[in-house]
Amino acid sequence: MPASTETEFLVETQFAAFPALALDCGVVLHDVQVAYETYGTLNASASNAILVLHAFSGDAHAAGVSKENGQPGWWSEMIGPGRAFDTDRYFVISSNVLGGCRGTTGPGSLDPATGRPYAMNFPVITISDMVRLQKLLIEHLGISRLLAVAGGSMGGMQALEWTVSYPEMVAAAIPIAATSRHSAQQIAFNEVGRQAVMSDPDWNEGNYYDGPPPRRGLAVARMVGHITYMSDASMRQKFGRRLRDKDAFGFDFSVDFEVESYLRYRGSQFVNRFDANSYLYITKAMDYFDLSAGRPSLASAFNCPDTRFLVLSFTSDWLYPTYQSLETVAALRSRNIDVAFCELTSQYGHDAFLLETKEQSEMIAGFLARVSSERDQAQPRRPEASEPVNLALSTRPDYAMIADLVEPGSRVLDLGCGEGELLAALRAQKQVDARGVEIDPAKVGRAIARGVSAYQSDIDHGLADYPDQTFDFVILSQTLQETRYPLAVLREMLRVGKRAIIAFPNFGHWTTRVSHLLSGRAPRTRLFPHEWHESPNLHFLTIKDFIGLCRKENWIIERQAFFRGKREVRSGANLLAEVAVFSIRAGR
Amino acid sequence: MPASTETEFLVETQFAAFPALALDCGVVLHDVQVAYETYGTLNASASNAILVLHAFSGDAHAAGVSKENGQPGWWSEMIGPGRAFDTDRYFVISSNVLGGCRGTTGPGSLDPATGRPYAMNFPVITISDMVRLQKLLIEHLGISRLLAVAGGSMGGMQALEWTVSYPEMVAAAIPIAATSRHSAQQIAFNEVGRQAVMSDPDWNEGNYYDGPPPRRGLAVARMVGHITYMSDASMRQKFGRRLRDKDAFGFDFSVDFEVESYLRYRGSQFVNRFDANSYLYITKAMDYFDLSAGRPSLASAFNCPDTRFLVLSFTSDWLYPTYQSLETVAALRSRNIDVAFCELTSQYGHDAFLLETKEQSEMIAGFLARVSSERDQAQPRRPEASEPVNLALSTRPDYAMIADLVEPGSRVLDLGCGEGELLAALRAQKQVDARGVEIDPAKVGRAIARGVSAYQSDIDHGLADYPDQTFDFVILSQTLQETRYPLAVLREMLRVGKRAIIAFPNFGHWTTRVSHLLSGRAPRTRLFPHEWHESPNLHFLTIKDFIGLCRKENWIIERQAFFRGKREVRSGANLLAEVAVFSIRAGR
Repeated sequence: MPASTETEFLVETQFAAFPALALDCGVVLHDVQVAYETYGTLNASASNAILVLHAFSGDAHAAGVSKENGQPGWWSEMIGPGRAFDTDRYFVISSNVLGGCRGTTGPGSLDPATGRPYAMNFPVITISDMVRLQKLLIEHLGISRLLAVAGGSMGGMQALEWTVSYPEMVAAAIPIAATSRHSAQQIAFNEVGRQAVMSDPDWNEGNYYDGPPPRRGLAVARMVGHITYMSDASMRQKFGRRLRDKDAFGFDFSVDFEVESYLRYRGSQFVNRFDANSYLYITKAMDYFDLSAGRPSLASAFNCPDTRFLVLSFTSDWLYPTYQSLETVAALRSRNIDVAFCELTSQYGHDAFLLETKEQSEMIAGFLARVSSERDQAQPRRPEASEPVNLALSTRPDYAMIADLVEPGSRVLDLGCGEGELLAALRAQKQVDARGVEIDPAKVGRAIARGVSAYQSDIDHGLADYPDQTFDFVILSQTLQETRYPLAVLREMLRVGKRAIIAFPNFGHWTTRVSHLLSGRAPRTRLFPHEWHESPNLHFLTIKDFIGLCRKENWIIERQAFFRGKREVRSGANLLAEVAVFSIRAGR
Repeated sequence: MPASTETEFLVETQFAAFPALALDCGVVLHDVQVAYETYGTLNASASNAILVLHAFSGDAHAAGVSKENGQPGWWSEMIGPGRAFDTDRYFVISSNVLGGCRGTTGPGSLDPATGRPYAMNFPVITISDMVRLQKLLIEHLGISRLLAVAGGSMGGMQALEWTVSYPEMVAAAIPIAATSRHSAQQIAFNEVGRQAVMSDPDWNEGNYYDGPPPRRGLAVARMVGHITYMSDASMRQKFGRRLRDKDAFGFDFSVDFEVESYLRYRGSQFVNRFDANSYLYITKAMDYFDLSAGRPSLASAFNCPDTRFLVLSFTSDWLYPTYQSLETVAALRSRNIDVAFCELTSQYGHDAFLLETKEQSEMIAGFLARVSSERDQAQPRRPEASEPVNLALSTRPDYAMIADLVEPGSRVLDLGCGEGELLAALRAQKQVDARGVEIDPAKVGRAIARGVSAYQSDIDHGLADYPDQTFDFVILSQTLQETRYPLAVLREMLRVGKRAIIAFPNFGHWTTRVSHLLSGRAPRTRLFPHEWHESPNLHFLTIKDFIGLCRKENWIIERQAFFRGKREVRSGANLLAEVAVFSIRAGR
């Protein structure tokens, strides 16, 4: 999804005001103003609106070029004509958060009761309060249901809060590099930042609006923040141990290293665009964030069966690590909510959600296309990028057989789904509810871009979150021999699915056996073409092995079919078949 | 190695003074004092001395109970009678570093030239300066060569500096959770701490010795430090999102969470025992640390062919991550220096070097026993804990054959060395120079505890650092079939070794083949006892496969032997042998 080469569109921040906002702390805030921008056009049915949500220090200016100062938005590469959030199709809204300092009411705003800045009299707010204000804005814009809410970091936390607070108002959510609850380490880093601000005598208990702001404290806080936004690897790459404007150590406490110079600069610059009290309030809101609080579990927070999720994280993000995204994903899957997940490979750390726009764009575009087509209640849209595979013509003989076994409109999980070809075809031809599991992040990305709900995991561990009997069919095609613990995988398939469809190459094929007997070598045939030392297969099994296992495990074989090339083998399968396909279910 | 239950021994900090110390920055420091403690007794030949080196905020009080205040030392569990650093056998020395504030000359000391504290007139020091002062102390104590230098974090950096600055003076080094050069991220965290201190108006350009110290700035610096010393997981475990003395959020900026309380307390306490200017100078010394600086490579820094290394790191340490220890290990291996390495599994983050004493103790005790026995130039000491395996009686028929192939006094590398049984036996019976590679950290730990130089890595990647033809024999016993890329492994074996000895189970054995043919199942025999779905084997090969590969790769088979049970098979081996042993070398 290349960024448009046209001249960037000009945008202007707008403002809306609301008489009152009830907060979680019990206080009612009066005369609340919201700064926001919109991109694209709201359609007649007001069904194409997407709310994008900024991170900690962001603002309403997410896209285009500011009329005021010519600056691009913080997600300009993602929002615009032909981009991930395609303004030719969607109406995109971005607003500054409650408690902020960029146009929306915050501690630096005038308290209507006193005519002076709130300062520390501003009530302590929550992520849920921020979202409550956003809801007022959305309704003010004439929108009753959002096509999607999307954001990274604190923006992702708001997106999740939307699905919990107003599940009926969001068709889809895209939380990126986010969490459902702040961890002790995240609280700790925020607390350090707050202490740095509050330790600065210029902070003056928050009453600095008539004098110098706490520049030094806020700068130190921001320096800590910048370290956590990058990764060890990206800092090594960007700065290494390079010195700043010198050839040798200064043996003093001025700047020696590039990284020191960068941090000092970023710290000092931040003071010019951010209010120290907003720093305190917004970090506190993040620390309070815990969707599981007051509930029996995180899963119980998500009462949004029809909302589609795309959850993204990044390998090198140690501030909002992947395990936190997986907590959210696991909770959603345990409620059987449709969630695609991919951990993108990136060196950029937490900043990746702002920097890795290409892969994110492809996935988000595909995901939004699926969601909007589903919402239009039309036939599931055929993905634009690639036509679904014609299964009858596929080079994979097992695909046609599998398609034959799957009932129309059923719920299907494909293990090792690759780029989602089979699932896309089943969706198009049999209108199934299609989910996939795939370990390769690049393939997961392409599957999601194709509109398939794929989940990045290895098959040995990928099913644990699903409740029993979630699917009608669980498919494992040509992958069993590559799993590390095939028996455990088969058992899991029959736990989460009513039926399991398994296709595998038959190690009992006569060429394999005769080759082994006569050659005295590890068999090497058309079916098992690899030299013994380069095979990806971890296990070898024959048709007879599989049937024996079914008997032992009390699994009932409902259908079986065996193939040599594309021809079905009717008898002597263990000797003659190259590929076997079984449909099994658990016995009583 | 359980801690002694006897009453802890009392210790007193002692002091030594030196007239002058030339520093890396060019300045000569006069009237330098060192605070130090010793534990145990120096032997007549002064050959049992071990220098332990403290981390950033540590001091000379490493062990025993302080006569002054009754406090235990920072490594009390590791140093004492019967402990890792066994004071019944070794003479252990610990000193406060140059630039410190615990008895050794630092910025808070009186400048003899002015009679006032140095403050920021103290010269900027380096890790190498610290070590130079330690060398004066060691010589003052009548020691010309240390049995070992050991320490964690900055202590490990000093240990490494010792081997580079004074290679002839150290028989062994134990750098734990350390690095050979500070990374951009490490510099960044230190710089934040320094900026926090220097931003506090009470710092007053360092001139606070007559007034209040920069309490708030130093506390913020220490808070950042504490986060980096722990891990995300250990903070989650220790604090989670638990509130401090309240049932609900306070909706204010006092303490809500336990973790906030902990950090504030630790920050405020630190001010009572640490000098803010020492904070600046010591962090700067760490940031300047780079053993590769001014050299063509890190490897070229290590001119200590006879020094033995034990390098330890911890899985959850993200401040001094394992990759940094591996950089050091790779440099040492590329110089063919004897280095054992283990990444210990721990949740404690960087603090693990102070907390995970049990496993560290076992390894350090075994390592020191080996080093001191080698130093005594006696017959290599038999390990105390476990007698070497009698190879003739071993349950592994291939062991005796391998032992027969290995020449006395040769250099041997054992891939997949397990707990080091074979290597320990070869060392005892054939006086070989024994190194091992093993992936399981628990086994690596036991091998090191047994005095074997084991290196934790998988075999598929474990040989890359070694120069060509480093070893006389590289052994791969019963592991080839479990490697992912066996051909690459075999090629690497013949690159780093003059000869490779390979033992493997023969998939060509007649029972295997007949079983496959007749049963139509994946073969399951005495030799391959696993069901197809639970085998650890990733590849299957026959004797004929292996001979074919040797021919193709132009490897010369010098010796071969085949076994059924413990009996050698003289003919029809591919059909009749269960285990094959080959000794091969590369062809011209």
